[in-house]
Amino acid sequence: MGKDIVKVGLLGLGTVGSGVMKIMEMNKEQVRSRAGTEIEVKKILVRDREKPREVKVDPSLLTTQAAEILEDAEIDVVIELVGGLGAKDYVEAALRRGKYVITANKDLMATAGASLLQLARDKGRNIYYEASVGGGIPLIRPLKHSLGANRILRLIGIINGTTNYILTRMDLEGMEFAEALREAQARGFAEQDPSNDLEGRDAAYKLCILAGLAFNSNIDFNSIHVEGIANLSRRDLLYARELGFTIKLLAIGEETDAGLALRVHPALVPLTHPLAGVLFENNALYVEGNAVGEVMFYGRGAGSLPTGSSVVADLIEVVRSINHQVENGVMESDFRDKKVVPLEELNSAFYLRLQAQDQPGVFAGLANAFSAEMVSLDMIIQKRSREGRAEIVLVTHREKEKNFNAALARIHKFPGIMAVNCVYRVITS
Amino acid sequence: MGKDIVKVGLLGLGTVGSGVMKIMEMNKEQVRSRAGTEIEVKKILVRDREKPREVKVDPSLLTTQAAEILEDAEIDVVIELVGGLGAKDYVEAALRRGKYVITANKDLMATAGASLLQLARDKGRNIYYEASVGGGIPLIRPLKHSLGANRILRLIGIINGTTNYILTRMDLEGMEFAEALREAQARGFAEQDPSNDLEGRDAAYKLCILAGLAFNSNIDFNSIHVEGIANLSRRDLLYARELGFTIKLLAIGEETDAGLALRVHPALVPLTHPLAGVLFENNALYVEGNAVGEVMFYGRGAGSLPTGSSVVADLIEVVRSINHQVENGVMESDFRDKKVVPLEELNSAFYLRLQAQDQPGVFAGLANAFSAEMVSLDMIIQKRSREGRAEIVLVTHREKEKNFNAALARIHKFPGIMAVNCVYRVITS
Repeated sequence: MGKDIVKVGLLGLGTVGSGVMKIMEMNKEQVRSRAGTEIEVKKILVRDREKPREVKVDPSLLTTQAAEILEDAEIDVVIELVGGLGAKDYVEAALRRGKYVITANKDLMATAGASLLQLARDKGRNIYYEASVGGGIPLIRPLKHSLGANRILRLIGIINGTTNYILTRMDLEGMEFAEALREAQARGFAEQDPSNDLEGRDAAYKLCILAGLAFNSNIDFNSIHVEGIANLSRRDLLYARELGFTIKLLAIGEETDAGLALRVHPALVPLTHPLAGVLFENNALYVEGNAVGEVMFYGRGAGSLPTGSSVVADLIEVVRSINHQVENGVMESDFRDKKVVPLEELNSAFYLRLQAQDQPGVFAGLANAFSAEMVSLDMIIQKRSREGRAEIVLVTHREKEKNFNAALARIHKFPGIMAVNCVYRVITS
Repeated sequence: MGKDIVKVGLLGLGTVGSGVMKIMEMNKEQVRSRAGTEIEVKKILVRDREKPREVKVDPSLLTTQAAEILEDAEIDVVIELVGGLGAKDYVEAALRRGKYVITANKDLMATAGASLLQLARDKGRNIYYEASVGGGIPLIRPLKHSLGANRILRLIGIINGTTNYILTRMDLEGMEFAEALREAQARGFAEQDPSNDLEGRDAAYKLCILAGLAFNSNIDFNSIHVEGIANLSRRDLLYARELGFTIKLLAIGEETDAGLALRVHPALVPLTHPLAGVLFENNALYVEGNAVGEVMFYGRGAGSLPTGSSVVADLIEVVRSINHQVENGVMESDFRDKKVVPLEELNSAFYLRLQAQDQPGVFAGLANAFSAEMVSLDMIIQKRSREGRAEIVLVTHREKEKNFNAALARIHKFPGIMAVNCVYRVITS
């Protein structure tokens, strides 16, 4: 049974595509032995056949016509590495022609994953997308299989390398945001237009995919609350450390009694939490299951070879499936729609930094504003004031976000308060 | 296609068995949906049917006769949770009768895994053993599948919770070994006879299994060099911290040009290394692949529900296999025998603590001993001496272990040296 050779078409030969070709060459024996069959990359879609490339590829494999791959009946597997929502046509065409699809396209899987997986199911095929989240870190397969016996209670991810690199440099080296961003760009950890990363959208796409699997649910990308890190100041990282925390851009998915809670925002993380040790461009996903307890997956969340490692792992699985002639089932097609809870209804602790006039009654006014909304204070820092102005940092206990916001509205109106600089949520455990 | 119901026999209803039954009950819907079929535990082997149990089980399921499970043609899957090498007969009998086997038995898989997997292959069945290493942390499946495109260069594991708990209490709270051990016993993290854990044998069994998968190799348990932590002093943890390290019991597998290097021993780990943050009873496996770079898997390495989580994940996979009527292949049967390199041939940095007479020429003698064997020093601590006796702590650069040992032999003979207290290897990256 099975084929002697499985033929593959590659759409795109950029960063990840080059990584895939390098791995297929350098680990040829390993891949062949795990897959159980010879694998041949038959054709590669590129925009420019003449462009010099960092990976050596037989020029006769290159084509500028997608149809040469999508309509080739010999090709069983299409690896889509073009990226962006425009790739949807390619993926649909491949599935319609009965090909298996492997993709690293997070935008596509986050926004159109449900319909594409349904199409795959209808065709008796499947889509593999380990590389769409967390580069080389195994996340999709563990959520689908290894933790399959768990009801997942919560996911907390550091799943954007650009922002984690910036926050790590700010925290460990005392850089300001702009300087750390320049460093990230110089080292290739941030793009020239980094807004997708800095504003949290990249992390939200990935959360959309992970939360779908974790909670067996079709997640609407627009139901995710998203805040970025562009306003973060080094000053807050210093205060956080004084209080025993660091600040990370977190992607959080939770299943509460009231429904799903989905959000990307910067948050204070206790220095004793495993996520606090995830530094520089590294990524991690922290998962709480009702049987397994807490587990964490850590590694390089991007890059040519790490992401290629996930693509080739998917390829090995596809080839094993083809060779055992198994329709091994699209697990995601049983997903249900679940209610999403507004952030205001969730409980959180909060960090607040503000400027107040250094005069009698100001602190009492602050304290009264919180107490009127039943929000209690956990930690307070007030340093010696300068020029009649006191900087105050407060951390509250966990309370409903609605109540905290109401207290904040009172504080804004209070005459002794000169400015509320910033508010961040705090992870307490 | 497939069965409406898959029937399971459970051998053993202790800690892990109870966890399995609890998970099957509390996550019934989830397990059913992921498996795609109803699962029924038909019979459970126990030693004493009357014994009170912490999990509610229909008493009619209990039997004291293994044959009632092993010879029941309706039972497709046998979950072996009896433990110990005596369980080999059960596993063989189950495979011979065409049943799939799931086991949490690390001793058995470490010492007889190769022959059992061969038997499984001959019978067109398979053995699943995710629960045999690292409790609920996904390790086996990621090594087999998610990292399948990588040549694994090195594994470093903290895979014994008892010793990690003891070392963490010693390090963070300044306890001596005996006190930390009593604490571990009082909290159920150490057995009354903890020698298997303290002497490193438990970690070596697990390394045997992990290294086999990582290096596609049949590992002889006796080829693993094993040292425990029973002689570790709080004093060394204090010095280590002063130098920027903590001390962990590590299980290390490496594939070098000369062959495999396999060892369990305490080692200094830089505080900036992700493994340094693995505290208390938690476990972690740090893996370096030639494509993925470094990844780490972290979580609870033992316990009823975490280990049960891995058993039930395996069960879901078995049931999916049965229902798709797939002979999905025993990957481990292609393993080869590989040469194991003696420790003396490996490179390492070393930590050394000794007592010397506080007199001229002693330090020069030490320095000459190292320099004669071409070992260079990286860090030195010498505190003010007391009663004519100086305590000296040295850390060397990376050098062949043979050379370090030769230098140590010279030092032992040197008249000014009163005692060599201890030597530990140092992880430098």
